[in-house]
Amino acid sequence: MIKTIGVIGGGQLARMMIPAAAKLGIELKVLAETEDSSAKLAATMVGDYTDLETVRAFAKTVDVITFDHEHVPLSIIETLESEEVSFQPSSKALKFAQNKLEMRKRLAELGLPMPDWAEVNNAVDVQDFLDSHSGVAILKTPTGGYDGKGVLVINSVDDARPWLSQGSPLLIEEKVNFVRELAQLSARNASGQWKSWPVVQTIQRDGVCSEVLSPAPDADQIQSAMIAKRIAEGLQVTGNLAVEMFETDSGQLLINELAMRPHNSGHFSIEGSVTSQFEQHLRAVADLALGDTSASKPFAVMVNLLGVDDSNTFVEHYTSALEDAGVHFHSYGKSARPGRKMGHITVLADESLEHAREIALEAKRSLHA
Amino acid sequence: MIKTIGVIGGGQLARMMIPAAAKLGIELKVLAETEDSSAKLAATMVGDYTDLETVRAFAKTVDVITFDHEHVPLSIIETLESEEVSFQPSSKALKFAQNKLEMRKRLAELGLPMPDWAEVNNAVDVQDFLDSHSGVAILKTPTGGYDGKGVLVINSVDDARPWLSQGSPLLIEEKVNFVRELAQLSARNASGQWKSWPVVQTIQRDGVCSEVLSPAPDADQIQSAMIAKRIAEGLQVTGNLAVEMFETDSGQLLINELAMRPHNSGHFSIEGSVTSQFEQHLRAVADLALGDTSASKPFAVMVNLLGVDDSNTFVEHYTSALEDAGVHFHSYGKSARPGRKMGHITVLADESLEHAREIALEAKRSLHA
Repeated sequence: MIKTIGVIGGGQLARMMIPAAAKLGIELKVLAETEDSSAKLAATMVGDYTDLETVRAFAKTVDVITFDHEHVPLSIIETLESEEVSFQPSSKALKFAQNKLEMRKRLAELGLPMPDWAEVNNAVDVQDFLDSHSGVAILKTPTGGYDGKGVLVINSVDDARPWLSQGSPLLIEEKVNFVRELAQLSARNASGQWKSWPVVQTIQRDGVCSEVLSPAPDADQIQSAMIAKRIAEGLQVTGNLAVEMFETDSGQLLINELAMRPHNSGHFSIEGSVTSQFEQHLRAVADLALGDTSASKPFAVMVNLLGVDDSNTFVEHYTSALEDAGVHFHSYGKSARPGRKMGHITVLADESLEHAREIALEAKRSLHA
Repeated sequence: MIKTIGVIGGGQLARMMIPAAAKLGIELKVLAETEDSSAKLAATMVGDYTDLETVRAFAKTVDVITFDHEHVPLSIIETLESEEVSFQPSSKALKFAQNKLEMRKRLAELGLPMPDWAEVNNAVDVQDFLDSHSGVAILKTPTGGYDGKGVLVINSVDDARPWLSQGSPLLIEEKVNFVRELAQLSARNASGQWKSWPVVQTIQRDGVCSEVLSPAPDADQIQSAMIAKRIAEGLQVTGNLAVEMFETDSGQLLINELAMRPHNSGHFSIEGSVTSQFEQHLRAVADLALGDTSASKPFAVMVNLLGVDDSNTFVEHYTSALEDAGVHFHSYGKSARPGRKMGHITVLADESLEHAREIALEAKRSLHA
């Protein structure tokens, strides 16, 4: 039986695993980047996750390792797996979350719906793709991107040159004319049990998630759940899987990005679901039976609190705010910095998404966020 | 602004304050009794809370101190208060939770409903009380009792002699012929804001809480809330206040015990209320605005998991249990011991208390509890 779960990365996702681990009676140990990480309460080691020896030493203190982010070099994971260290998700799954070219190739094999895409290595490749897609496309670095980084809208080969000059293969994708963005969160344990939450609508601002509406109004729940299940099984994902999708005006769902960990689009589940995404991820990683994902109220809205300056951590504004109307405030314990994910607010409602959203946005304003 | 809250005692109540503190962005530090306490994740010091120097050293590391239990000697609290250390609740309130004779005297001054009671110092006092109460009474040690300890049913002076021989004043109370037991939880911050949860029914087995039903069916919510408010204000309680009461067949409420901290009767609030009792206690202790205490579902049932032997921590039985039907399982991370509070289960329901209770008891059985 798994008694101790290690998490690489000390961000807010690791932080929010702490209550879930305590509830389950599982010990959580975190390999954090800095002494003052968001998850410092559970940090048992501070070190560089790109250093094999550091990760090996951390692995010796836990029964299984999972992740707060997808930036641990695959070579380190593969080396330690050959030494019988258990990573959940394993390198076999994680390579598709780390490398968007690999992801596109694998999803194509599985026949899953995606934007048009190609691997490009030079200006000719880029021009070809632009020519067949009305002269506009999205260029992506296969690895390392998140929250809008590593993504470039191009209208000409010239726009692509700075990235092409770096000499690595790039991913080019059709610029989808979508009507909204959806995210389908689910979890799968090593025994193969799989469960999903409702598909949600995500609202992005400047490439960063700003709001999440659960469930996404009038969405095709069954189609999106089937896509997620096919990916989870086809890629042998263990733990949480977030599938970010575009919805086109014809109602088609096209897979945008994948993440194999708790995800910003699932924070609503802490209060909004019987089993939160953090508890479910740990259950899946420990190969326990997955928990009930039913909604605790019909509607949930999550609003991110992004830093506005170098001083407002939002915590200071409690006393005059948030006391009523069902507002759940979560701080990530971070020092303030503009644009930084500092916390979030969740509001549940019986009536409607609009009702929950109004309260959440009013609470956000009251925090000067 | 309060940034760090210290908790004396490392039991499950301190453990369940950890998620609440993380959510609020407040740092929690625990002075634990042992290295392997239930709240060890937040333990920053291990030491003897009956030692002034230990508590003084702990106080230097936090902005305010609160409690996992009421056993810290009042003299230590008073000494440190004279050195400007902030305790919430303060010694002025806490003395009534620590000493049942003091509590009875103060509640009498406030005109609050209680069982008949008297201070007894010798056999004559006891005989007098028995004579006027049909020959049966409850004898209590004024300090140190909990979970049925320090309480004795007596039918004669002889029954009382072992305790009388210790030479300290005792509390004697009428044996109330109650139809059920209720508990009213509320919280008050130093600024005087006060909020209550619904009054609940508690079911005791062998003097220990076994089940909690929220709300108590057909209870007089207003009467019990008014009693709690009068106590919270009259005793200047800060933080949570649990009022345990008897309900007689005529519907009268009689105050039994008080606790000034999170309480077993409020564990349902983790999922069952917008603001859990643990978050509310920390808000009150930090003098933040209190959170919304509305119910997240109409009905909640909490079932304690008491140890059955020296090996079953209940965590082992997850894989085959609890996966569906809205069961929230909480482990306290303790080693197994018969009768020990090892964890609890909460089930919420829209339909009825009976529905929630059936599921909770079935889940308990599936854990071999």
